[in-house]
This record gives sequence, structure tokens and C-alpha cells, in this order.
Amino acid sequence: MTIPANSPTLRSWIPVAKDSDFPIQNIPFGIASWNGEAPVPATRIGDTVIDLSILADMGLLDGLGHSREAFLAPNLNALMAGGKQGIRALRQRLSELLQEGNATVRDDNATREDALLPLDQVTMHLPVEVGDYTDFYSSREHATNVGSLFRDPANALFPNWLHLPVGYHGRASSLIASGTPIHRPMGQTRPDPQAPPIFGPTKQLDLELEMGFFTFDGKPLGQRISTAEADEHIFGLVLFNDWSARDIQSWEYVPLGPFLAKNFASSMSAWVVTLDALEPFRIPGPVQDPAVLPYLKADDGAFDIALEAALAPEGGEATTICRTNFKHLYWSMAQQLAHHTVNGCNIRRGDLMASGTISGSTPDSFGSMLELTWRGTKPLTLANGEERKFIADGDTLILRGHAQKDGLRIGFGTLSTKVLPVVPFV
Amino acid sequence: MTIPANSPTLRSWIPVAKDSDFPIQNIPFGIASWNGEAPVPATRIGDTVIDLSILADMGLLDGLGHSREAFLAPNLNALMAGGKQGIRALRQRLSELLQEGNATVRDDNATREDALLPLDQVTMHLPVEVGDYTDFYSSREHATNVGSLFRDPANALFPNWLHLPVGYHGRASSLIASGTPIHRPMGQTRPDPQAPPIFGPTKQLDLELEMGFFTFDGKPLGQRISTAEADEHIFGLVLFNDWSARDIQSWEYVPLGPFLAKNFASSMSAWVVTLDALEPFRIPGPVQDPAVLPYLKADDGAFDIALEAALAPEGGEATTICRTNFKHLYWSMAQQLAHHTVNGCNIRRGDLMASGTISGSTPDSFGSMLELTWRGTKPLTLANGEERKFIADGDTLILRGHAQKDGLRIGFGTLSTKVLPVVPFV
Repeated sequence: MTIPANSPTLRSWIPVAKDSDFPIQNIPFGIASWNGEAPVPATRIGDTVIDLSILADMGLLDGLGHSREAFLAPNLNALMAGGKQGIRALRQRLSELLQEGNATVRDDNATREDALLPLDQVTMHLPVEVGDYTDFYSSREHATNVGSLFRDPANALFPNWLHLPVGYHGRASSLIASGTPIHRPMGQTRPDPQAPPIFGPTKQLDLELEMGFFTFDGKPLGQRISTAEADEHIFGLVLFNDWSARDIQSWEYVPLGPFLAKNFASSMSAWVVTLDALEPFRIPGPVQDPAVLPYLKADDGAFDIALEAALAPEGGEATTICRTNFKHLYWSMAQQLAHHTVNGCNIRRGDLMASGTISGSTPDSFGSMLELTWRGTKPLTLANGEERKFIADGDTLILRGHAQKDGLRIGFGTLSTKVLPVVPFV
Repeated sequence: MTIPANSPTLRSWIPVAKDSDFPIQNIPFGIASWNGEAPVPATRIGDTVIDLSILADMGLLDGLGHSREAFLAPNLNALMAGGKQGIRALRQRLSELLQEGNATVRDDNATREDALLPLDQVTMHLPVEVGDYTDFYSSREHATNVGSLFRDPANALFPNWLHLPVGYHGRASSLIASGTPIHRPMGQTRPDPQAPPIFGPTKQLDLELEMGFFTFDGKPLGQRISTAEADEHIFGLVLFNDWSARDIQSWEYVPLGPFLAKNFASSMSAWVVTLDALEPFRIPGPVQDPAVLPYLKADDGAFDIALEAALAPEGGEATTICRTNFKHLYWSMAQQLAHHTVNGCNIRRGDLMASGTISGSTPDSFGSMLELTWRGTKPLTLANGEERKFIADGDTLILRGHAQKDGLRIGFGTLSTKVLPVVPFV
């Protein structure tokens, strides 16, 4: 008897701690390596990473439409070729192999020892090779806060904001995996509007707490993906930190948008959690008023995913600086995809669509230091007594996210990024 | 005796018409196919396309650091792995093989018949697989015109414009080759600021006459490319048309820049003309006042490349609508690259950097219909008597560019794109 991968009663023969983000109902996908071997596709149960290339080599993942080569690739793109059905079949097979009653791998000592690795012995890599990365701006609270800070509190939202999911193209080359440190960027700023611009390290380095989703194959250039079709094109989600330099941004961003203020690095969590795994946490979306144009009408709702950001100074303990939720977004993923393609713009397998900073309505739910400290006017106090207006060298930013309901918890683990000092000019 | 590939006295044993853009001093690179075969790297002399895979298979391109597989690839990226020196060596070898005194291919009937094809039997493809595409905004005249039309003629240039090369990230997925038609995009606009936005076909479809350059390998994330180093990272140039929908643009572009107004398609010419081939046409760049910050100081000058755009209505003859020049750009390629990487943003082999619309100072030198017709207020009259405010369905836009000096002409051929009607909603 086949038990659906999401069934809350399922248990794995691999140990899972009570508050783990990775019960057998999750079965996310990532790219892992250890012992200097080549990175390969993997999944995770509890704190155990499972090397899919070993299972595939044993023939245990045959018959699902995936080539064996796809399980040896350094990214998930080849596994994504089968689309939603291909990933669904793979997730179901893995669920069956890892259920407590299934002896296939559990009782095969050699395979189990080859395929199962403790999380702390594994290096995780970027899960997907991204062709194009788009960042939306879909939190009304964030857009309102930024508009108030950078422009005019009385007209914080631009007139277009409630009519379309504003977005822009980001930089794919500088996407990095969790654990990869970044250097404080240098750039041009104009702190004194009466004086010429200056050049130096950013003084307003910031996080943006976001989530992002990866796409399956799209349609040919010129064709559209409707809101009703969007779900079939979405692989899954990751935590996302769209690093930003606010002083560079405020000087450069007119009229063509953020550029060097953002493209020095954007980090993502290691495990792609599928939409299927998140299905139990789908809830009604926000009421949209004014009504949207017909091509943006959607019923995909929202997902109730608790998110938080913590800041750990060099050698110090982490302080939670923000608690927010993915459900706060005004524009849904289906609306984002439908808008992105309504002009015929093609998406490709492996494209990344990020949400934009996810801020709630209370000051402790804002997803950036810009908002949390109100552009530095209300510094945060950390657990060790230090203050922060923006992010300091040596700080590590840690994002976490999980959904929880009726005893089932599905999460994303952590996205951790340390900030190193500027690279000096030589 | 080795004769440098740029030597103006060189002649090929392949016929070259007097006004050809492709004398033996050019030796551009592109991707060609014919008879349904797989696309492969090629060069061009006059109206003859030379299949490099055939020459490589004969061993004629050995010893230059390129693998034979690189000559079988569907894009130039593998050939670009050797950087400037690798392409320089290849260009020099091809120059020698194709010189009138060299009998190697000329007198080898079988090889010559296999490798040489008439242009009109060949299909040209995108030359390079682009990772990230950046579009700059480097023409002062264009930025001034757009600022006057979209905002305020008295403050047309934003304060940052003279201090840094403004740019933004474009969409790589919708880059298309010359000859690929586009469909008129649909989108959201707000023609009446007092009424809600509407949805429909753009009424202000426009070209942007640009040039773009491709990059060789860059440096790791976090490191910078100086203006002095930039030249070594530039492969060559193409003609570029950054298709734009002005009514969509003016509604959507605040505050994050153009998105759907641009990402439905951007077209490029087939042949990448190397910087080496363009070296004879390097001239001093514009005086920059105010002085730029030290990281932007550059001495790479400009290139004197005459550019033009023509519009051919369905079934009608083409009318030249714009004559401009690449030398009009305020910001140089070295400045663009140095700015792009000064924050540590990494570039990769195959990235594309476009110039932004290249407008001169006279009304007949503006590189877009937006400027040529002053947002539709001064329609252009075509040779057949029709008027155009923007681009109509059935119109074909043709860009051309060439440099000429002392009897030597190096050019880019044509970039031709036809506009088809909207794809209906189904």
C-alpha cells in the first residue's frame, strides 16, 4: 500500500529530533559533497543527509523518468527536467525507501553506510544552476517602509504598487550558498547632497529576509503562463537573503533600479523544499483591493511559513532581530509568474524568483535593518550589549523558516552568512 | 613571414566586395548551421561563411590552446576559455589560412567545398550563451532626452549620471539572434493617470539602437577588475536592439527600473567582432566633467563606429530613421566593467554588457523612436508615405554598423528583427 509522502503519520527509520525541520514528510532536495568527492543530489531526514547518487546507482530510483546521470550532476537542474510529476514521483519513492517499515536500505548495511552521512560531515552547495534571477517587491509593508524612508511617508507606495507585482532583474553570477562568507562591498555614495560623491566601504550593509522559488521548464518565448498554470512550473522554495548596501542604493537607484547595491552577493539556503511538501500549510491569501486585472486573478493563496533572522556578532551569541511570515506577502507566486510572462518573457528551468523583503506590520517583524532601525535612527541592542544600526564586519546573519500545523513541522534549516571586511585595493 | 591579422594590405583568396563589412582583417566569430546540421563556430569573409569545425577536424587549428570539442560546440563559450590570447591566436591562424598566398585550404578542393558556404545557405544563431546580461545607460544625449520626456526637461539628468555609468540587470532568457521575429508584447499601462490601469498590446513599441560586448572569464566573487585590466576581459562586440515598450515602461519602472517593458526580447547581430579587429578605429574618448572618481579613470578611449537603424514596413522598402555613432557614448567599456565589479560583483565568461541606446546630439541621430518622434509628437514619414510614431506590426527593424578608415572597413553586418502581432490569449 502506497502511503502519500505528506501523510502526517509516516515515520522514518532514520532518527528525527522532535523539532527538526526535516521529518520524512519534507524530503527536500539539495547538492552535497563530502570527503572531497564531487557534489551530487541529496535529500535530508533529521540530521542525516542521503546521497541520491548511491541509491540511483543501486537502481533504487529507476523507473521514475530520471536518467542515472541526473543523480551525478552538480546541480538539480537535470532532475528538474521531469517537471512537477518527475519530482513528485522521486519524492514518493524516497518516502517509501525511508519509511520505518521498509527494509531495502535500512537493512542493507553497505548501501546504508555509503548513502547516509551525518550533516556535520557534509558540505552543501548551491542547489540549482540559475539562469535568470528575478527579485520581486511583494511585501506591502516593506514597500511602504522603504518608500517612507527613501522618499515621502505621505506617498510611500508608488501608484503602480497595488496594481502589479513590481520586480526587477537581479544578478545570477553572485548567488551563493549558505555558509559562503561575503566581503563588505565598496562603492560610490553621496552622503552630503551638496558635495561630490565619495568612494569607500558601504556604511549601511543590510540583509533582506526573503524567500525564493525555482522554476521548472517554462514555455517558448512569446507565450504566457497563467495564474492557473503557475503551480505546475514551481519546483520549491528556499530561504533567501538579498544583501543590500543602502547608501550605495540610495545614490545609484534612479532611474533604473538597484544595481551595485545588490549584485555583490545574494545567499540562499541549501535545501529546496517542494511545494508539495508545503501543501498542508497553504492558507487564503490577502484581500487585494483595488481588484487586480483579470490576468492577475489567482487562487493559489499564501503559505503560512514562520521566518526569523538572527544576528551573531564575532564570537558572540545570536540575537533574533526579526520574526515575520511568508504569508504577509501581498502578491502570490502565481501572480508573480503570470505577471513575469504576460508580455511573452520566457522562463527557463532553474530560474529563481525571490519575494522581496518580507516585512510584517509590527516593528519587530521588519525584514531588513533599514526598517528595523528606521535607517539607523533606532539602533538595535544585541544580547551582548552592542548596538547595531546596520551590519558590522564579523557579524553572521542567520535566517530560519518553518511551517507547523497539527504536529507536523516542515522547515528550511538555516541560511547562514558571515560578513568579512572589505577586500583592500591592491 | 607572419603578417598581422589587421594588416591593411592583406587580401583573401575568398572574394570580398568593395563595401563588405567582412574583409580578411575582420575575422569575426559566430555560430552557423546549414542543411539541418548542428550549429558550430564559424567565421566569415565577404559573403562566405567558413565552418571552423571542418578546419579543426583537419587539424588546421591545432596548437592554439583550443580543444577540438570547442569547435563543435553550439556557442562560442568554449573557444572563449582561452581568453584574449586564445582568440588572438585563432584569429591570426585563420588570417594566415585565408590569405591569398596560402594554398592549404584554397587548393584543397574537398576541404574548401566542405568548409566554405555561401551566406544565403546558412542559418546564424546566438553566438554566445549568456549568463548575465547587463544594460548600461551610457549615452548622455539619450539619458537627457528620456529624462526630458519622462520627467522634467530642466532636470533631465539625475544627479548620479555624470558620476557613474548607470546600469541595470536585463533578462538573459529572452536574448534572440538576428532574424528571429518578435511578437508585440501585451502588458499593463495607465494612459489616463486619473483612471485605473488597463491591459492590452503595447501602443508604444520601440527599438533601442545599442552595441554590446561579451566578456571572457572574470575574477572570483569579491575581486575587482580595474579600468586598466578591462581590455583583457573583453572578447568583442555585436549590434544590439533592446526592444522596449514605452507605455509599459513609464507605468512600471518606479522604483526598481524597467522589467516587462524590456524583457520580452533583446536581439543581437550574428558576428562577434573582436576588439583586436576594431583597434585601428580607437579614438580619444569624450572629456568627462566633472572628473570621475579614481576607480573610474580610464584611457581606453572610444571607437569610431558608424551606426544606423532602418525601418521596413511590411512589403515596403526600408527607410533609414537614425544615423549615430558608438563614439558618442560618455562612459567607456573599461569604465563600465570597472564600475560593475568595484563592489566585488563577479563577471563570467559569456556575460553580455550592452551600452544603452546610443543617441547623438542631432535629432536624426537619436537611437529610439521615443526620441526620434519625441514620444509620438513628431511622427516620422517613411519612404512609402506612411507615418510612424512607434513601431507597427509587420515592421522590420534593421541595424547596421561599421568602422572605416584609410580604405579599411570593418563591420557587423545587419541585425534584422520583424515585429509580429500579439499572441492572442487562449
